[in-house]
Amino acid sequence: MEGRSREALDKTIRAIGPLDAEAMAAARSRQDQLTKPRGSLGRLEELSVHLAGIRREAMPHLTQKVIVTMAGDHGVVAEGVSAYPAEVTAQMVYNFLEGGAGISVLARHIGARVVVVDMGVFATLKASPELVSKKIASGTANMAKGPAMSRDQAVQAICGGIDVVDEQVPKGLDIVGTGDMGIGNTTPSSAICAVMTGEPVKVVTGRGTGVDDAQLAHKAEVIQKSLAVNRPDDGDALDVLSKVGGFEIGGLAGVMLGAAARRVPVVIDGFISGAAALIATGLCPRLKDYLIASHVSVEPGHQAILRHMGLRPLLDLDLRLGEGTGAALGISLAEASVKLLAEMATFGEAGVSDNEEKV
Amino acid sequence: MEGRSREALDKTIRAIGPLDAEAMAAARSRQDQLTKPRGSLGRLEELSVHLAGIRREAMPHLTQKVIVTMAGDHGVVAEGVSAYPAEVTAQMVYNFLEGGAGISVLARHIGARVVVVDMGVFATLKASPELVSKKIASGTANMAKGPAMSRDQAVQAICGGIDVVDEQVPKGLDIVGTGDMGIGNTTPSSAICAVMTGEPVKVVTGRGTGVDDAQLAHKAEVIQKSLAVNRPDDGDALDVLSKVGGFEIGGLAGVMLGAAARRVPVVIDGFISGAAALIATGLCPRLKDYLIASHVSVEPGHQAILRHMGLRPLLDLDLRLGEGTGAALGISLAEASVKLLAEMATFGEAGVSDNEEKV
Repeated sequence: MEGRSREALDKTIRAIGPLDAEAMAAARSRQDQLTKPRGSLGRLEELSVHLAGIRREAMPHLTQKVIVTMAGDHGVVAEGVSAYPAEVTAQMVYNFLEGGAGISVLARHIGARVVVVDMGVFATLKASPELVSKKIASGTANMAKGPAMSRDQAVQAICGGIDVVDEQVPKGLDIVGTGDMGIGNTTPSSAICAVMTGEPVKVVTGRGTGVDDAQLAHKAEVIQKSLAVNRPDDGDALDVLSKVGGFEIGGLAGVMLGAAARRVPVVIDGFISGAAALIATGLCPRLKDYLIASHVSVEPGHQAILRHMGLRPLLDLDLRLGEGTGAALGISLAEASVKLLAEMATFGEAGVSDNEEKV
Repeated sequence: MEGRSREALDKTIRAIGPLDAEAMAAARSRQDQLTKPRGSLGRLEELSVHLAGIRREAMPHLTQKVIVTMAGDHGVVAEGVSAYPAEVTAQMVYNFLEGGAGISVLARHIGARVVVVDMGVFATLKASPELVSKKIASGTANMAKGPAMSRDQAVQAICGGIDVVDEQVPKGLDIVGTGDMGIGNTTPSSAICAVMTGEPVKVVTGRGTGVDDAQLAHKAEVIQKSLAVNRPDDGDALDVLSKVGGFEIGGLAGVMLGAAARRVPVVIDGFISGAAALIATGLCPRLKDYLIASHVSVEPGHQAILRHMGLRPLLDLDLRLGEGTGAALGISLAEASVKLLAEMATFGEAGVSDNEEKV
């Protein structure tokens, strides 16, 4: 079983090419002719050049915007690591489908579609035309007692994410944001973060949905125990995902890889998406070129991930909701950056005098 | 002449009331019932509560969004303080009217109107239905040799800004962003900043549109000389504006005061808007409650202003264009925050379990 899926995964990884230097140079050159002092749009200029390199277009358009919000449950909640009961994962999936969640509102605000995916919620969810099922199992196993999933399931989860991207391409997909829902999922994310960045568990463990001091200490102990029980190999991302990961984390890693293979920029959300990015770049280091960090979360582990990956977030708004909420705001900035590149007049077009160095 | 205008200004200042504590409490209470961990939307939650207090509504809507971009020229350009020739101010006004400038693109992106105002450009601009004229004079006088304008002109400039707001109200005005265009205007802004914050001129003088090291040193000397020649009184904001200000800076101070008097939140842009905010809060300290800092500019003086006023910017994108570009992005975040407040489902509505502290 792993054989065939693993082949699909390797094929996707092989399809991820370098940024297009020619498109980037053309975008850079156009930025320098637009009616503004050179560089005065700061990171929005850099972002537009980066997006040109990903899209292989001197003037890319990001009209078709998609947030993929993946849900999964976690056996480790049995250890009491979250402030919320596990049934909230399924309840929130219905809230996404009804349009009442934070990501629903922000996706409407920026004009994006939300694709809600069941990667492995405990409950059997009611079928809905709006709900994509790539369910691997009804929640992961308790990683404090053994691996969260098999290696085969880890590959399947990633391939599920790749498939979600492939299914969205015919509907139009110019940029994708990643989002998550899964009660307890900051616990595997901290575990992945500790393994992949080398930071101590205590440093990368935060309050998640809002645990108190005693619960926070307990959560760190559970993560420590999970690492001791499973001994994940930091040189083998699939090993890390299978032992201390989650189905939605694997799925999001797949979304990132699938998008990059299609030259679709990936705007990553917060901590859980960051953990998925560690897995995905562990499988394919070049993927990093396709990632845009939307924001820095309050979760300390997220800060460690961004540092480790050398990604500078666009926003710092003390967000810690997940779902893709930060990614939605980041996508709007990305779209703004390419609109500036495409729609601003040049000095010549507008009859505006350039500065002395050019006169 | 000053008498009547001064009366209008005082009337506006008297109309600026405190934030509405009741609306803020209602917004806060609703935020705590929405389907997310309490506080997990971070600064977007705070912002929505703040906006409720300004608008006096538990669930404000920010549908009618306006950027006021004010243009003015500066006699001090004769000292060679800018990297661009002064005629660019007028050329850029036409670019705004044609929709080819940075602010034109970003205003379209966020669904805002741009109101372009001639506060005192050197050239006589071609009339256009899209151009509002509140022209005080054809550029300020050279502040390195004497006051930039008379005290009467300073009052008129502020009243011009108040009038612009009043004229927009019938067209719909839920939130306003401030923007500027004026070759040389970082020079008076640095002067205002030095006087009002007490920071040394060298600390608050930056490269503006892009002067080199020698020009930067010269620019600081010109500012130093302007302060020595005029000796503005930091306890009298009108004195500061008239001696070392600009017409668009006065106009923007008026926009801020006029908007606050109408309970319209003001999203301030970068350094020039910040200098205007120093003048406006000098006239009416309570105005500060109505100001939202959109971003922190690369200009060091802007950072000093935000510190001095205790405003935390929403964005840090290395912008230094002005025109209201940062304000446009900030308005979009403000609108996102009130949409989240109004449109997200509550735990009760969505049938989502709340966390243990409430169970």
